[in-house]
Amino acid sequence: MRPETAFDLGFELEAIPASTVPEGTITSVAGVEVGTASVGLRGRGGDDLALIYAEGATAAGVFTSNRAKAAPVVLSMETLAESESVCAIVANAGCANALTGERGMEDAVAMQQAAASKLGVPRNSVLVASTGLIGTYLPRESVVSAIGMVGLSNSVEAGHRAARAIMTTDTHPKECAVRVGLEGYECTVGGIAKGAAMLAPSMATMLAFLATDAALDRPTLARLLANSVEKSFNKLSVDACMSTNDTVVAFATGRAETSSGRDAIDGDVVEALQKAFDYVCAYLALEMARDAEGSSRIAVVRVKGAASSADAEAAAMKIAASSLVRCSLYGGDPYWGRVLSEAGSAARVFDPSAVSVAYGPHLVCSGGVATEVWGSEELSRYMSAPEIEITCDLGVGAYEALRVMASLGPEYVEENMKTS
Amino acid sequence: MRPETAFDLGFELEAIPASTVPEGTITSVAGVEVGTASVGLRGRGGDDLALIYAEGATAAGVFTSNRAKAAPVVLSMETLAESESVCAIVANAGCANALTGERGMEDAVAMQQAAASKLGVPRNSVLVASTGLIGTYLPRESVVSAIGMVGLSNSVEAGHRAARAIMTTDTHPKECAVRVGLEGYECTVGGIAKGAAMLAPSMATMLAFLATDAALDRPTLARLLANSVEKSFNKLSVDACMSTNDTVVAFATGRAETSSGRDAIDGDVVEALQKAFDYVCAYLALEMARDAEGSSRIAVVRVKGAASSADAEAAAMKIAASSLVRCSLYGGDPYWGRVLSEAGSAARVFDPSAVSVAYGPHLVCSGGVATEVWGSEELSRYMSAPEIEITCDLGVGAYEALRVMASLGPEYVEENMKTS
Repeated sequence: MRPETAFDLGFELEAIPASTVPEGTITSVAGVEVGTASVGLRGRGGDDLALIYAEGATAAGVFTSNRAKAAPVVLSMETLAESESVCAIVANAGCANALTGERGMEDAVAMQQAAASKLGVPRNSVLVASTGLIGTYLPRESVVSAIGMVGLSNSVEAGHRAARAIMTTDTHPKECAVRVGLEGYECTVGGIAKGAAMLAPSMATMLAFLATDAALDRPTLARLLANSVEKSFNKLSVDACMSTNDTVVAFATGRAETSSGRDAIDGDVVEALQKAFDYVCAYLALEMARDAEGSSRIAVVRVKGAASSADAEAAAMKIAASSLVRCSLYGGDPYWGRVLSEAGSAARVFDPSAVSVAYGPHLVCSGGVATEVWGSEELSRYMSAPEIEITCDLGVGAYEALRVMASLGPEYVEENMKTS
Repeated sequence: MRPETAFDLGFELEAIPASTVPEGTITSVAGVEVGTASVGLRGRGGDDLALIYAEGATAAGVFTSNRAKAAPVVLSMETLAESESVCAIVANAGCANALTGERGMEDAVAMQQAAASKLGVPRNSVLVASTGLIGTYLPRESVVSAIGMVGLSNSVEAGHRAARAIMTTDTHPKECAVRVGLEGYECTVGGIAKGAAMLAPSMATMLAFLATDAALDRPTLARLLANSVEKSFNKLSVDACMSTNDTVVAFATGRAETSSGRDAIDGDVVEALQKAFDYVCAYLALEMARDAEGSSRIAVVRVKGAASSADAEAAAMKIAASSLVRCSLYGGDPYWGRVLSEAGSAARVFDPSAVSVAYGPHLVCSGGVATEVWGSEELSRYMSAPEIEITCDLGVGAYEALRVMASLGPEYVEENMKTS
């Protein structure tokens, strides 16, 4: 079983006894309660704040590498570093609380304190995340008051509401859960996410909150999460803009159903959980790409045959971030020359006579020159699909890299030319 | 005197006795003859081939650093390396002759040979340049036949026609000349250029052909040209896409008017010529930015106060190449948060509490937070101008960098979503 896509991203559940959960979300995981409220930060109204609580859980997080970190990112990183008892996160959409100075940090702390009071836990048991406009201040009173109104629930509907509450320019909520059925150990991994623009490796303007009911200690949870983030969110490039607010957090509640013979986390369980985390993260990342602002089409870019890993990564990244390749993708135009022009500007070892490019099974360039497939009917049909694959073989080595990219349409400009 | 722009790019002619030539172009330079012809490579018709001949001149060139170099770029680099007698260049628009393998190189050589035969000079006295679609072959017979039909002229009109012949998606020709009047040494620098998209440091999808009638040896000419290119074309970023075909070539004909007292090139002449080359290159680069595909507005980005030169350059480059900053520029939206988000992802030393951002004289962010100027009427008025300045002070050092950027509008997508 794979994420519902034409792509083979290598995230297979087939090898383990697992299945996706219908209507799966973060509350599909035992021990997770969520609630939402309205601060009034978004023009279109509706709930714009979510509180996720996993009593007694362990937690791990991955944050933006941007040095212009938003206050909630700084606060959450500090909190995770100093506290072993993190079990909740409070998040808002509509205001990023980024580049807001001391007042911004005070606002983030107030948000953290309000959530802790609500849950009856120490302040440093709560993480904070924000997404939305940079440079504006949170209305502290309204946020604190909204947190006080949150009603927690472990229902699937509550999970769906949380997925909606964190949306900014997303057009639909992004949620997923996978049930792993090992003999004597049945557990679930679920998550919700948001992110539509400003998506670039490493990390996107994205929030993703995951949970599992497996009884994982923090180092194991942190390792599983980091591995999955690297293989999913960090392969995603929408516009090569790295956000100030990227946050991925996972909780492990330890409420999984175990039978007498198997109550400890052994190697098989960890391996299965890694695959489940991979799947959930890949699904959420693909959903972000599909919902990218102004995008009509997504593509998996595979660079093969590179002389080094660095060359493969640089070329894949440059192709995926290219405005020109993204415009071609929008138009369904198999203009492979742009793909190779980007590869040639990124890879240190590049031999124009050794390269080839294929769109899906259609080889349009071989030995550095066009084939007769370029311009064919079959190729046009293939290019009209909403999800395609671009393979660029540099022909000079054995290294590979992969990126998921989105097309660049006029709607991206319209969405981003004015913030108000 | 400065290039006609609101910007202070530091390219001043005031310090030397110089003036721009009305209707100035490459044939404003004594000893330069040009001619054009129609191969039929462009849909809209008209001449699409130009031949520039500077009998007995010295020559120098700067070429794309992309490893996916087009055949004419490879051939021209080889020709310049092996021959001291380069005095001509033949260029076509509508077909880049890039990623065309052995046949592409044979076509470039045929083009070179045809031009050499036409001029009665050895083949290695001629350079070749192409711009247009990547991956398609030149119609060799048509090109050779067209070259045979070229009629050379030193008229200003012939220069204008050449500037038009090399255009691709440009909406108007780009040409300029400067007359330097030193006592006893009067000389001219003129040039033509094309380039609308795929513009990124280092170099753009651009062709620029310059000439001076000063009697410069090749090393001096090469040094003057390289200095000017670094300060102008290499500061220009339209879409961060580096082309396969970028070519800047300059000729020195030695036909300048000298009087008895001063017939050698001394330090004063070289200094004045550097300023003239700077001016002509800056003018042509600004004209490219102004004519960038889908752009309504251009900006000079100045990063100041960086902890290192590398940080300043990386931040300026990342801001200028940012899809989000470019969309804001298109919308006239002073969304400084995106500027700092890009700077924070690019600069190694970044202190969110030390940064400031100004649009022209309007300081919108100080000490890392918004000022009251953000949202003001004066700022809105400033943002509506076609050329603006963005200053980002990192506040952690003394290093600076500059880039010229263009806005990203829906027209860019429409121009680039289909090649045919």
